[in-house]
Amino acid sequence: MTAQITARWIVDDVVHSDGLESVPEHPVGPVWIDVRDPDEDTFAALHERFPLPPLAVEDCLHFPQRPKLDTYPGVSFLVWMLPPAPGGSAAGTREIDIFLGEEHLVTLHRGEVEAIDRVAAHAHEYLPRGVEWTLHAILDDAVDAVFPVIETLADELEQLGDLMLADARPEHLQRLHTARRALVALHKTVGPERDVVRGLARLEAFVEPDAYMYFQDIGDHLARVADQIDTYREVASTTMDIYLSVQSNRMNQIMKTLTVVATIFMPLTLISGIYGMNFRFMPELDWRYGYFGALGLMGAVALGMVWYFRRRDWW
Amino acid sequence: MTAQITARWIVDDVVHSDGLESVPEHPVGPVWIDVRDPDEDTFAALHERFPLPPLAVEDCLHFPQRPKLDTYPGVSFLVWMLPPAPGGSAAGTREIDIFLGEEHLVTLHRGEVEAIDRVAAHAHEYLPRGVEWTLHAILDDAVDAVFPVIETLADELEQLGDLMLADARPEHLQRLHTARRALVALHKTVGPERDVVRGLARLEAFVEPDAYMYFQDIGDHLARVADQIDTYREVASTTMDIYLSVQSNRMNQIMKTLTVVATIFMPLTLISGIYGMNFRFMPELDWRYGYFGALGLMGAVALGMVWYFRRRDWW
Amino acid sequence: MTAQITARWIVDDVVHSDGLESVPEHPVGPVWIDVRDPDEDTFAALHERFPLPPLAVEDCLHFPQRPKLDTYPGVSFLVWMLPPAPGGSAAGTREIDIFLGEEHLVTLHRGEVEAIDRVAAHAHEYLPRGVEWTLHAILDDAVDAVFPVIETLADELEQLGDLMLADARPEHLQRLHTARRALVALHKTVGPERDVVRGLARLEAFVEPDAYMYFQDIGDHLARVADQIDTYREVASTTMDIYLSVQSNRMNQIMKTLTVVATIFMPLTLISGIYGMNFRFMPELDWRYGYFGALGLMGAVALGMVWYFRRRDWW
Amino acid sequence: MTAQITARWIVDDVVHSDGLESVPEHPVGPVWIDVRDPDEDTFAALHERFPLPPLAVEDCLHFPQRPKLDTYPGVSFLVWMLPPAPGGSAAGTREIDIFLGEEHLVTLHRGEVEAIDRVAAHAHEYLPRGVEWTLHAILDDAVDAVFPVIETLADELEQLGDLMLADARPEHLQRLHTARRALVALHKTVGPERDVVRGLARLEAFVEPDAYMYFQDIGDHLARVADQIDTYREVASTTMDIYLSVQSNRMNQIMKTLTVVATIFMPLTLISGIYGMNFRFMPELDWRYGYFGALGLMGAVALGMVWYFRRRDWW
Amino acid sequence: MTAQITARWIVDDVVHSDGLESVPEHPVGPVWIDVRDPDEDTFAALHERFPLPPLAVEDCLHFPQRPKLDTYPGVSFLVWMLPPAPGGSAAGTREIDIFLGEEHLVTLHRGEVEAIDRVAAHAHEYLPRGVEWTLHAILDDAVDAVFPVIETLADELEQLGDLMLADARPEHLQRLHTARRALVALHKTVGPERDVVRGLARLEAFVEPDAYMYFQDIGDHLARVADQIDTYREVASTTMDIYLSVQSNRMNQIMKTLTVVATIFMPLTLISGIYGMNFRFMPELDWRYGYFGALGLMGAVALGMVWYFRRRDWW
Repeated sequence: MTAQITARWIVDDVVHSDGLESVPEHPVGPVWIDVRDPDEDTFAALHERFPLPPLAVEDCLHFPQRPKLDTYPGVSFLVWMLPPAPGGSAAGTREIDIFLGEEHLVTLHRGEVEAIDRVAAHAHEYLPRGVEWTLHAILDDAVDAVFPVIETLADELEQLGDLMLADARPEHLQRLHTARRALVALHKTVGPERDVVRGLARLEAFVEPDAYMYFQDIGDHLARVADQIDTYREVASTTMDIYLSVQSNRMNQIMKTLTVVATIFMPLTLISGIYGMNFRFMPELDWRYGYFGALGLMGAVALGMVWYFRRRDWW
Repeated sequence: MTAQITARWIVDDVVHSDGLESVPEHPVGPVWIDVRDPDEDTFAALHERFPLPPLAVEDCLHFPQRPKLDTYPGVSFLVWMLPPAPGGSAAGTREIDIFLGEEHLVTLHRGEVEAIDRVAAHAHEYLPRGVEWTLHAILDDAVDAVFPVIETLADELEQLGDLMLADARPEHLQRLHTARRALVALHKTVGPERDVVRGLARLEAFVEPDAYMYFQDIGDHLARVADQIDTYREVASTTMDIYLSVQSNRMNQIMKTLTVVATIFMPLTLISGIYGMNFRFMPELDWRYGYFGALGLMGAVALGMVWYFRRRDWW
Repeated sequence: MTAQITARWIVDDVVHSDGLESVPEHPVGPVWIDVRDPDEDTFAALHERFPLPPLAVEDCLHFPQRPKLDTYPGVSFLVWMLPPAPGGSAAGTREIDIFLGEEHLVTLHRGEVEAIDRVAAHAHEYLPRGVEWTLHAILDDAVDAVFPVIETLADELEQLGDLMLADARPEHLQRLHTARRALVALHKTVGPERDVVRGLARLEAFVEPDAYMYFQDIGDHLARVADQIDTYREVASTTMDIYLSVQSNRMNQIMKTLTVVATIFMPLTLISGIYGMNFRFMPELDWRYGYFGALGLMGAVALGMVWYFRRRDWW
Repeated sequence: MTAQITARWIVDDVVHSDGLESVPEHPVGPVWIDVRDPDEDTFAALHERFPLPPLAVEDCLHFPQRPKLDTYPGVSFLVWMLPPAPGGSAAGTREIDIFLGEEHLVTLHRGEVEAIDRVAAHAHEYLPRGVEWTLHAILDDAVDAVFPVIETLADELEQLGDLMLADARPEHLQRLHTARRALVALHKTVGPERDVVRGLARLEAFVEPDAYMYFQDIGDHLARVADQIDTYREVASTTMDIYLSVQSNRMNQIMKTLTVVATIFMPLTLISGIYGMNFRFMPELDWRYGYFGALGLMGAVALGMVWYFRRRDWW
Repeated sequence: MTAQITARWIVDDVVHSDGLESVPEHPVGPVWIDVRDPDEDTFAALHERFPLPPLAVEDCLHFPQRPKLDTYPGVSFLVWMLPPAPGGSAAGTREIDIFLGEEHLVTLHRGEVEAIDRVAAHAHEYLPRGVEWTLHAILDDAVDAVFPVIETLADELEQLGDLMLADARPEHLQRLHTARRALVALHKTVGPERDVVRGLARLEAFVEPDAYMYFQDIGDHLARVADQIDTYREVASTTMDIYLSVQSNRMNQIMKTLTVVATIFMPLTLISGIYGMNFRFMPELDWRYGYFGALGLMGAVALGMVWYFRRRDWW
C-alpha cells in the first residue's frame, strides 16, 4: 500500500484540499495533513515542510500501540487508540498518530478511519477555527465511537447470560472470554487516553482557552466510557457465575441419574445373584413358581425404588 | 396512536390548559407543552411556535434511549430515562425527551408517564414559578419513583435467598438473573442522569440561582439511588453464592446416597457371586444350612455397613 | 397500647417532667416531648401546642421506615432508624420520628427505646443547653448502640467460620444468611443517616454553631459504622468461601470412598463371575483346591488394591 | 501480678527514673509515668498527683479494647492497640491506655510492651523535648511493629499458596482461616487508630505545632498499613481460590479413576454373566476352547478400554 | 565480588568519569558516585569524602528491601525497588540505595542495573543540570522499565486464558499463581515508591522548583503502573474462574461417561443374572433360541439406552 497524503488549508476563507505539494509555501492559517498508510518517504516529504521531532517520527513508523502525549518544542506528538472497526474483531484496537503544531496538524493512520473521514467531510466547519478544533473534532468522534462498541459487548453479554441459563456450553465460555478480553483491551486504552486529554488541556501554548473546556468534555466522555467498561466487566463476572451455576445444576442432574440407576439395579442384580448360587439346599429353587416369584420380587423392589425417588422429587 | 398535545400557560396568574392552537401568540410567562406519542406532524406544529434544533428533533423521533443533555443556542435538549412502570417488566425503562427554553418547556413521551401526570395535576403550583421549577418537579418525581422499584428488587432478592436456602431450583436462577439485569439497567441510566443534572445545574442562562440548589438535591437523590443499586448488586452476587452452596450441599447428599448404596450392595453381590461359582469342591454348598448361612452373612454385612454409615453421620 | 406522653421543660433552671397538659403556656427555654406508641389523638393534642407540618404527621402515623430529613418552615422532621434491640432479631431495625423546632423537640417511637431512656435520665444535663443538644445526645446514643450490634454479628461470623471448618452444615448456611441480611439492613440505614446528619449540621437556623461540630462527630461515628459493616460483609463472603471449601473437601472424601469401594469389589465380582460360567471345559473347576485358590486370588487382589490406595494416601 | 510503676522526670537536663513517690512535688518539665499491670490502688496513687478523669479511669480498669481518643479538660485519654507480640498468636492484639496532659504522660499496659521498653531506653532523647514527643515515639514504634506482623502473615499466605498447589489439605484451610482472621483483627484496629492520630494532630492545646507534622507521619504509616492489609486480604482470597481449584482438580482425578474402573469392569462382568446363564442351548459352552475364548474376549475388551482411555489422556 | 566505584564529576563543562580517588578535593558542581556490589570498605572510602548518616549506611549494608525516604540533615537516603531484570524471575525485584546531597549523588546496587547504565551513558546530558536531574533520570528510567514487565505478565495471563480454555492443566494453575505473585510483588513496591516520590517533590532544600514538576511526572507514571497492576490482578482472578469453569466442564464430561456406562451395563448384567438363576422351572431356558433371544434382548436394551442418551445430547 502506498502512502496517500491529503492536505487541507485555507485561502480566502475557503478550505482547499489537495496533495502535499499544492500547499502554499507560507500558508496563512491552519493546515491539516492526513496520511494514510505512511512510509519513510512520507516523513521525508512532511519534514521538509513541517519540522517533526525525529524521536516521534521513529515512534510513528512502528505505530507504538499505547496512547501517550509527548511535548517537543513547538510541536506535540500524540498517540490515540481507536475502538475496533464495526464488524471487526472486538479486540482489534487501531491507532492514530498525531502531530499538533501551532498552525499545522498531521494525522497518520493505517487503513481508513471513520473519525478522520467524518471530520474531513466537515473540514470547512472545523479547520477555519484552528487546528485544535480539528483535533478536538477527531478525538470527540473517536471517543463517541467507543459507545456502540461497548453496547455491542453489553448485548453479547446479555445474550450469553440467556444462552447459558438455557444450556451452558463450552463455546459460551469461549465467547465470554472473548468479550472480557475486548473489555480489558478497551479499559487499557481509556486510562492513558484520559491522561492525554488532561495533558492537551494543559497545553496552553497550542490550545485556545475556549477549546480547553471542550477537551475537558472529551475527558468527561472518557470517564463515562471507563465507568461503563467497569459495569460490564462486572456483568461479565456475573455471567461466569451463571455458567458455573448451570454447570453445577447439570452435574446434579447427571449424578441423580446415576444414583437412581445404580440404586434400582444393584438390589435386582443381588436378587438374581442369590438365586444363581449353587447351594444344594435352596428351597425356593424347587418351588413351582419360584422363578416368577423372583421376577415379581425384582419388579416390586424396582417399583418401590421408583416411588421413593419420585417422592423425593429426584426424578 | 395519534399524538396528544396538552399546552399549559398562564394568563392573569391562572394556569390555562388546552390544545397547542389555543396558546396566545406572545404568551407572557412560562408555557409547558406535553406531547404523548409524538409523530412528525407534532414537531412541525411545535416548530412553528417554538423553534427546536433539528438535530434534537431527529433524536426525539427515534427515542434515543440514553440520558443526555445537549445545549443549543436558546434551548437545551435532554433525554431522561424513567424506571419501569409499576407492574411492568423490571428491565423496561421508559424515556422522556425534554426541550427546555427560557420560557417554554416541551416534554415528549410514549404512553402515560406517572411523573408527568402528577406534576400536571399540580401545574398551578409549579408553572407560575417558571419552567425550571416545572422541569425540576418532573425529574424529582421521576427519581423518587426509582426507590420503590429498587425496593421491589430488594424484596425479590431477599425472597430468592430464602427460597434457595430451602430448595435451589433452576427457576430461582432465572429469577435472580432477571433481577440482576434490572439492577444493571437502572445502574446504566443513573450514571448519565447524574451528568445531566450536573449539566442542568450549570445552565445559568436558563436556571434560576435558587433552582440550582434544588437540582443539586436531585443529584443527591441519584447518588443515593446509585448507592442502593450497588448494595443490591452485591446482595445479588451473595444470593448466587447461596445457590451454589445449596447446590453443592445437595450434590453431597446425592453422592452420599450413591456411595452408601454401592458400598452396601457390592459386597453382597460378591458373596452371591462366590456361591454361584461352579467349582467341583466347594464345601459350603453341601452344608445343610449353607444357603441360609450365606443369606445371614449378607444380612450381617449389610447391617454392619448401615451401622458404619450411621456412625459417620452419613445417613 | 395507649400513647404515653412525657413532657420535659425548664423552670428556674430545673427540669420538670410531667404530662403534656402541665407544660406552661409560654415556656421559657427548651421543651422536649417524648411520645411512646403515638396515635392520632396524640397528634391532635401535640398540634395544639406545637404546630406540626401535616405531611410529616402523616408520615409519622405510618412510621415510614427510611431515615430522612425534611425541612419545613420553623420545624424539621427527621426519621432515624435504631439498631435492633439487644436480644431481638438482628434484622429488626426500629424507628424514631423526630420534630425539631427552635425551642421544642418531639420524639415519637413504638415501644421502649434505650437511647431515649438513657438521655431522659440525664435530661438535666442536656435539655438546659438547648433542644439541639438533647437531639444530639439521643442520636449519639443511638449510633453508639450500633457498635455492640455489629460486634455481635462479628462474633457470630467468627463462630460460624470455626463451626464450618469443623463441619459445614446447612444450618450454618442459614445462620450466615441471617447475619448477612442483618448487615445489609444496617448498611441500608447508615447511608441515609449520614445524609440526615449532614443536613442537620447545615441547619443553621436551629443548630448552634457549637453543636455543629458535635453533629459532625456523629457523622464520623456513622462513617466508622459503615466501614465496619463493609469489613464484616467481606468477612461474611469469606465465610461462605469456607463453607464451599469444606463442602468440596467432604465431596472429595465421599467420592474417594465410592471409588475405593468400587475399585476393590468390581474385580472380585468379575472373578466370581468367571468361575460361575458354565463352559464344559474349565480346568480350574476340577482342581482340588480351585475354590480356595479363587478365594485366595480374590483376597490378594483386594489386598493389592488396599495397598495401592493407602500408598496414594486415599484411605 | 502487682502493678509496677516507673516514673521518669527531668532535673537539670538529666532524666531521672524511679518510683512514683520520688517525683518532685512540682516537677519542672515533662513527667512520664509508665504502669505495668495496673490495679485500683495504682489509680488512687496516680490520682493524687495527676488528676485523672474518673470515666477514663473506669475504662482503663476494663481495658476497653477499641482504639479511641477522649478529650477531657486538661487531659486526653487514648486507647491504642498493639500488634500481637512476636511469636504470640497472630490475633492477639494488646492494648495500651494513655493519659496525655500538658506536662505529664501516663501509659498503662498489661505485661511487657516492646514499644514502651524501647522508648524508655531512649527516654533521654525524647522526654526533654516534651510529653508529645515521648508519646509520638511510643506510637511510632508501635505502628512500625505492625509491619513485621504483616510480613509474617504475607509469608504464611505465600507458603500456603505453594503448599496448596502441591497438595490441598484441610489443615491448610485452617491455617488460611487463621491468617485471615489476624488480618481482619489488624484491619479493625487500624481504622480507629487513624482517627485517634487525626484527633491528636488537632489537639493544639497539648501538641506543639512542630509535633503536628510528626503525628501526621504516623497517620501516613497507618495508611500504608491499611493498604498492605487490604492487599494481603485479597491475596488470602486468591489463596482460597487456589484451594478450591486444587480440590476440583483432585476430584476430577478421583472421578476419572472411578469411571475408568467401572468402564473396564462392567463389560467384563457382563461377559462372565452371559456365559453363566443356564440356557440349555448355548453353543459356545460346548466348544473345546470356549472358556479360553471367553477369557481372551475379556482381555481384548479390557485392553481396548485401556487403549481408549490412554488416547483420551485420562490415565 | 569486589566493589566497583565509578565517580563522575564536571570540570570545565566536561563530565569526567573515573575512580573515587580522582575526584577533585573541592569539586565545583555535581558529583555522581555509582557503586556496584558495595562492601564495608566502600562506605569507609565514601564517608571520607561525603559524610553519610551511619543509620542509613547500616541499612545499605543489609539492602533493606522496602522503598523509603529518610531525611537527614544535608542528605536524603532513599531506597528504590527495580522491577525484575528482563528474562529473570518475575518476582525478583532488585534494589538501589541512593544518597542525595546538595551537590552529590551516591547510588549503590548489586549487579548491573540497566537504568544506571543507560543514565551513565547520557551523563553529559543530566549531570551538568544537577544531581536532582540525574536522580530523576534514573528513577524515570526505572519506572518506565516496569511497563514491559507488566506487559509480559499481561501476555502470560492472556496466553494462560487461552490454554485453559483448550485444556485446564494443573501446571497452568502453577503458572497463574506465579504471575499473580509477581503482580503482588510489584504492587507492594509501587505504593511506597509513590510516597518516596511525593517526599522528594517536597524536598525543597535539594530539589530545584523546576525539577519538582518532573518528579510529579514520575508519580503520575507510578499511578498508571498501579492502575495497570490492579487491572491485571483482576484479569488473573478472571483467569482462575476460567480454570474452575473448564474443570467443572470436564467433570461433567467424566460423570456423563460414567453414568452412560453404568446405565447401559447394569440392565444387561441384570438380564444375564436372571438367566443365570438356578430355578428348576424357568421356561425360557428350554426354548430352542432362548440364548439368542436373551442376547437379542440385551442388544435391544443397549441400543435403546444409546438412543436415549443421544437424544438427551449426552453422548
